[in-house]
Formats: sequence, structure tokens, C-alpha cells
Amino acid sequence: MGSTENSAEELVLSNDPLHPANHICELCAKFYTLGWVTGTGGGTSIKRDNHIYIAPSGVQKELLKPTDMFVMDYATKQYLRRPQALKPSACTPLFYAAFQHRGAGCCIHTHSQWAVLVTLLVEREFGKEACFEIEEMEQIKGIPKGKGQIGNLGFYDRLRIPIIENTAHEEDLTESLEEAMENYPEACAVLVRRHGIYVWGDNVHKAKTQCESIDYILQLAVEMKKLGLPWTK
Amino acid sequence: MGSTENSAEELVLSNDPLHPANHICELCAKFYTLGWVTGTGGGTSIKRDNHIYIAPSGVQKELLKPTDMFVMDYATKQYLRRPQALKPSACTPLFYAAFQHRGAGCCIHTHSQWAVLVTLLVEREFGKEACFEIEEMEQIKGIPKGKGQIGNLGFYDRLRIPIIENTAHEEDLTESLEEAMENYPEACAVLVRRHGIYVWGDNVHKAKTQCESIDYILQLAVEMKKLGLPWTK
Amino acid sequence: MGSTENSAEELVLSNDPLHPANHICELCAKFYTLGWVTGTGGGTSIKRDNHIYIAPSGVQKELLKPTDMFVMDYATKQYLRRPQALKPSACTPLFYAAFQHRGAGCCIHTHSQWAVLVTLLVEREFGKEACFEIEEMEQIKGIPKGKGQIGNLGFYDRLRIPIIENTAHEEDLTESLEEAMENYPEACAVLVRRHGIYVWGDNVHKAKTQCESIDYILQLAVEMKKLGLPWTK
Amino acid sequence: MGSTENSAEELVLSNDPLHPANHICELCAKFYTLGWVTGTGGGTSIKRDNHIYIAPSGVQKELLKPTDMFVMDYATKQYLRRPQALKPSACTPLFYAAFQHRGAGCCIHTHSQWAVLVTLLVEREFGKEACFEIEEMEQIKGIPKGKGQIGNLGFYDRLRIPIIENTAHEEDLTESLEEAMENYPEACAVLVRRHGIYVWGDNVHKAKTQCESIDYILQLAVEMKKLGLPWTK
Repeated sequence: MGSTENSAEELVLSNDPLHPANHICELCAKFYTLGWVTGTGGGTSIKRDNHIYIAPSGVQKELLKPTDMFVMDYATKQYLRRPQALKPSACTPLFYAAFQHRGAGCCIHTHSQWAVLVTLLVEREFGKEACFEIEEMEQIKGIPKGKGQIGNLGFYDRLRIPIIENTAHEEDLTESLEEAMENYPEACAVLVRRHGIYVWGDNVHKAKTQCESIDYILQLAVEMKKLGLPWTK
Repeated sequence: MGSTENSAEELVLSNDPLHPANHICELCAKFYTLGWVTGTGGGTSIKRDNHIYIAPSGVQKELLKPTDMFVMDYATKQYLRRPQALKPSACTPLFYAAFQHRGAGCCIHTHSQWAVLVTLLVEREFGKEACFEIEEMEQIKGIPKGKGQIGNLGFYDRLRIPIIENTAHEEDLTESLEEAMENYPEACAVLVRRHGIYVWGDNVHKAKTQCESIDYILQLAVEMKKLGLPWTK
Repeated sequence: MGSTENSAEELVLSNDPLHPANHICELCAKFYTLGWVTGTGGGTSIKRDNHIYIAPSGVQKELLKPTDMFVMDYATKQYLRRPQALKPSACTPLFYAAFQHRGAGCCIHTHSQWAVLVTLLVEREFGKEACFEIEEMEQIKGIPKGKGQIGNLGFYDRLRIPIIENTAHEEDLTESLEEAMENYPEACAVLVRRHGIYVWGDNVHKAKTQCESIDYILQLAVEMKKLGLPWTK
Repeated sequence: MGSTENSAEELVLSNDPLHPANHICELCAKFYTLGWVTGTGGGTSIKRDNHIYIAPSGVQKELLKPTDMFVMDYATKQYLRRPQALKPSACTPLFYAAFQHRGAGCCIHTHSQWAVLVTLLVEREFGKEACFEIEEMEQIKGIPKGKGQIGNLGFYDRLRIPIIENTAHEEDLTESLEEAMENYPEACAVLVRRHGIYVWGDNVHKAKTQCESIDYILQLAVEMKKLGLPWTK
């Protein structure tokens, strides 16, 4: 792997702002202002052809540079580029699951406080293993119907986002994330109790706008609880 | 329509930052930071002479480019410019209603969470078909008296914003929006339950500042409910 | 007055970013991001020597240009510069009161929602004519002891900000503002019920940082009420 | 001291954005947007080799310039650079304590409202002298285990942040801060009741990201109280 280090620069150097190595930097800077990746938390990964680009662990997300990126070969799971001074993201197997099981092109992990609060509110009201449910919100139309179906949810559809329990080590979430993907084939996101959320999409545009729509709904859901308003009828 | 595609570039290319195609981009970028157009939600339209400029559907509003704009002829309702890769906004007939029935020069549609929460609070307290009412707030002076009257509301006037029920498809809101415009001739805005708000004005300046004033009041109204403070005497 | 129009350009054209005409623009743009001057609300005035610079009425505060400024002679109260297309600010006599009675060099008027909510909370708890009081907050040390005394309040001092009732026309607040200044000689700010706040200081630096400190305290006071925490012992 | 004034310019003039004099300016501008240093409150200090760089007192933190910095010799506690027009920060002995007792490379002091509110909530529930405690939050993994131990806290570890009582003069906090450091050898932060928080780290990166992680947790803790959710089991 070390031998590929220098020869791998061309994987991340590009003048195209939409090149994954550049795009992840721009996205993470925006996510920082949204409070999604505070204190090096959260992360983002883009798959382009057979290359997976992943923001490193432990780096200030608003200050990311293209040369900070890890690049993994999708088929072999080998790193094609691995910056020596940095640690690979513990989210890597979770991002991979979205690419593998959902054919995603981008996966975003945030520590949004709305996500954390919603998992606590659901637990109190419905116990563990419950999922978050809400209906009759216009923004639900920003969420796809999911696996195998064309188009987005409608206003009268109920949005369901599964919740999995957090683990001591982020990579140990992989199994339960994959299980949730199987049990909720329509879902484009999984909440992690006391932790945050994973949202994926066919491409960067979809992953980002779906993540925004879901975060908007989660914030609204928390504010509704403060005001004593129910999520469903 | 396809034939007008290339010849229609001059409709959106201008060095004037106040040209509608440029102005909509600048406004939408600002609205994104205000949380009004999260996840491609919301939209904005400007009417100049006989041309209506409309932001497309499904595009990240903070990244809009002038060449993304749809341009419609006001008299014929035909598209003079229709970007092939994009979908026209489902808000188009609603924007049109503001231009036609109120002589508006600009109409803004937001998914502001304060708007959504106020519609839920009104429903719980007063039932469906009720409108939002508040009085004795300085910011009310930022709202015009409305159709046929000169000047703005006073501090002691009561602000009334009608609320219409949401529909499965945005364009199906047109009829009830027009009905609300008729029933509330003084209103410069219509709330849509569980959805957001439409605000219009004689020109961009007025539509934008009225939208800000109303959103400010809606936010204040939600915070007042959290603190147990009444909206009216 | 009209005759001074053209000859008065040099009053507002300067390369110095701290020239009042430039400084007001920079301040108002910042205040917009803080939510203090939404929808053309609020305003700012700087006195330099015998000239008073005042942001106009009804202009988007984040888009102010130096040439938008009104300039008034302090001694004669005559406008030395009066942009034809714009309306002078209704806050002018209130700003003037701070210059005249307190020797202020700058006065800031905001529509901060925290200010509005605090006036409502005080009214409910203590009735009209009451003032806002809080103690034992570090940020109180950002507020001067006031007229005739040197230095700032201490941590154990009680901050008192008088509240006056709003009027239909902003200029009609002048008398009660002056009365509050007389009754509360230590105050560097006056809250206006259901409206906002006026904060002044010896110079721009002091007015701006005192306004920030007070707004911080007002926000904290509102959050304390949501959490059932008392403002004083 | 005055004699070193002019010769000390080279201590703060550098083209390197990571030079302490530049870095503090960039950090404080960011902290301003986070609401941590409103109204000249709060401060930041970086230790490089034997030099301690400290932002001055009473300056607008978002407008800091490298030439505003005080520079102190770590061994002698003498100022190597002391801008004539400015006042040294009252936080200096507190920053020094973090450098001396914890070997910190950077110390950040904020007036975060979440910090203030948490100290009030803890006092109401557990009385004075209590410390803030929370567990099972992913973001806890952003906080180091502390003195003498390698690595960060785990998800199942309980985060404890001591709270000290505020004093009339900031420098008088030094003794109780040092006492708290001794009693809580694992802590990388100390809350100050009705005031804010001090957070330190081995270097700027760690101090800043730990400060962000803690502030995130404090905000979450306040929101949890609003929703009636407990901090620990």
C-alpha cells in the first residue's frame, strides 16, 4: 500500500469542482455550518466507478483538503490511496454497505442533534427497536420511495426511518445497519441511537438533498414535541 | 418549444445583478441560509414585463445558475425558455395566480419550519379553515394593507394570513390559493398547512422584505407558544 | 435642502472603512445575519463631530450603500444630505435623544426577537411599566455602569433595562424614551414592548459590543424561562 | 516592557496562517459565528515553545488582528510584547494554569449560552459543587480520557466536567480552576457557573475540536432538559 502512496496523487488532484476529492471538501464545509460534523464528527463518501473516496477520521471537516482523501477500490476493498498521517474513517464499512446493498453513489453520515434527539424521543415513547415515523409533511416528498420503486414518497405516505442501537466502535454498527437495510427496503437512511444518521442516495445530489430533507423533518419533529404536537394521526 | 431552446439564451444572460435570472439565484442562495429552501424545497418567481422567470424544480436552490431558469410568456402561458434537463416548478400556477390576481412582480414560496408549525398550532386551537392572526407587533408594520389600499398595516392592526389545506400535488393548490386570495383581499401571503407559505409583492424588494417580516412574526409566534404567551388579546 | 443634494456627496464618500457612511453599511450587514434588522426593520446611527449619519427607512439593511445615508447637522437638526429616493428613518428623534442626553457616539435599534419576548415575559409577570432585571451573569460585565460613573457593571450588580410601551408611530416613542433615560440614568438601553430595543454607547465599538452583550443576556433570559430558571434570586 | 514594544513586532508578523498570532485571529472569527465570544467575551491562547500568545481583553473577537496579540514568556511570565493601547486578558492566569498543569498547547474560553444554562440546570438539580455528567452519547468519543491516559473516552464512559463558582474578577477564578484540575485529573474542561467554559488541549487542533464536541454535548443536554430527557441512566 505504501508503494502506491506517491503514484496515487492523480486520484485526488483535479480542477473539476465536482471531482469526488474536491466535492467532499465542499460538502463537508457546508455540513459544518449546518452543525452536522462538529468536532471532526460525521463523514462523507462518494463512489465513482470503482473508486470510493472517503473523508478521513479525526480531521476538522470544514478544513478538509483533497489530499486528505482515502481512495478504496470497490472490488478489492484495498486502499488505492492512504494518506500516511491520517486514520481511515471508522464509517468506511457502513458507507460500503450503502454502495453494495443499495447501489448508492454517495453516503453522508451526520451527528445532527435533531437525529440524536429524535432517537431518544422514539425510545421513550415506543421503546427500543422502534423506528421513527411521521406523515403529512410536504418535505416527505423529498424522500425516494426506495429500492426498486421509481419516484418519491407522496404527502400522504408515511416516512419510516429505522433506528439501530449504537455500539462502542463505529465499525461494529455494520451488521445492524445491513439488517436495517434488509428490514426496511424502502429506507434511504438509518438513524443510530444517541449518535446520528446515515443517509445515502444514487448520486451526490440525491444523497445531499435527501439528507437535508430528512434533517429538516427531524428538526420539525423535535420542535413538534416541544409544542405537544403529534407526529402521526 | 424545443426550437426556442438555443435562441432563448439571451433571456437569461445579463451582466445586471438585478436581471431576474441573476436575481433569483442570489435570492435563493440567501433563502437557503435562512432554512427556507432546504432540500430543493420552495421556489421563487419574478415577473418582468410579460416574462415570468421561474426557478426549476428539484434543483439545489443555493447552487442555482441563471441558465437553469424557465421563462414563460405571461399572456400565452407558453414557455419561451425551458431547459431540457430540468423540470418546471410545480409552483408555477401558484406563482401565476399572484401575478394575475394581485398584480405581483415577485412571488416567494418557502418551506419555513415556522410556517409549518404555525399551521399546526392554529389547527389544534381553532380547527381547519382557520387563519393565523396576531396583533400588536412592530414587525406587522412591514406588511402592506393590501389590495386597493395604500401603505402598510399599523401596530394596532391585526395581521391575518389565511391557511389552506395541503394537497398531494402542489399544482392542485391553485384553486384553494385563488379562493383564499378572494376571501382575504388584504392578504399578501397564504399559509399551506404542513407545507409552508407563499408570499408575494409588487416587486422583488417588497416580496422579499414582506416574506422576511412574515417569517419573523411566525417564528416569534412559535416561540410565544413555547412560553405560553397569547397571539391576540 | 434640495440644493445641498449634489454638493453633499463628499459627506458619504470615503475609502476609510471606519467612515460612518461605510461603517453603518458594514454593521447593518452583520446585524442582518444576527436577525436584528429583518425585513428592513431596525436601524443604526453614528454621530461624528457635528454630523449625524443615519441609515434610511425601508431599505434592506444587508444591502445598504454609503450613498443611501442621511446626514443631519447636530446643532440645527437640518439635513445636510437627504437622498431624494429614500425616506428618513422614523428612529431619527430617538437616535438624537441618545446623542443629546447621553453624549452617545452611536445608537443601534434592533427588532431582536429576544428583546420582544423578554418584554412580553416581563409584562406577564410584573405588569406594564416594569423593567427587565437580571443578576449574576458574567456577560453583565459587558455593560457600563452608566452616566457619570466610570467602568462597567460587576458580576454581582443587577442589570436593569427600562421598558417603554410601543406607539403607533415610531417617532412618538421619543418622549417616553427620554423619560426612561431620565428615570434610569444608569441605563445604556431601552426596551420597547412588542417592538425591540435601542442601545447606545460612547462610540461605535461600545454601542455594538454593548448591544451584543445585552442581546446575549436577553436570549439567555428567554431560554431560562423555557427551562423554568429564575432571572434573579 | 515598553522598550520591547517595537522590537517585538516579529513575534506576531508571519505569512504562515498557522502562526499563533494569525491562528488566534482565524479561530476567534469562527468562534464569533458560533456565539462563543459575543460582545468581546471569551478568549483564546496558544503556547508555542516558550511563548504564550493571548488575545487581548475588550476587543471585538471577530475583528482581531495579529498585532493585537500579547506575547508572554512562559518561564518568566514577563510580557515580550504588550500592545500599548490594549489591556491584557483577565483570563491569562487561567490559560497559564492549563499550560502549566496540563501541558496544554492551546486553551479556549467561551461564553457559550449552553455552558451557562447547563451550570444553572446542574445547580438546581444537584446543588453547588456538583459537576455536569452525561453518558452514552457518540460525541463523548471526541473527548480525551485525560492526564496520563492515551486515547479518548468511549461511548459507554461517563463524561464529567467540573463546575466552579464564578467570582467578581476573572483572575480570581485561578485557584478554584487549579483545584478543579487537581480533583478531576481526567477533565480537559472546567465549567464556570453563570459564566462559560474553559477547554484546553495538547495543541490547537485538539483544543478546538474538544471545545466543539463539548459545546455540542452541552447544547444537546439543554435540549434534552426541554424535552424531559435524562442525562444519565
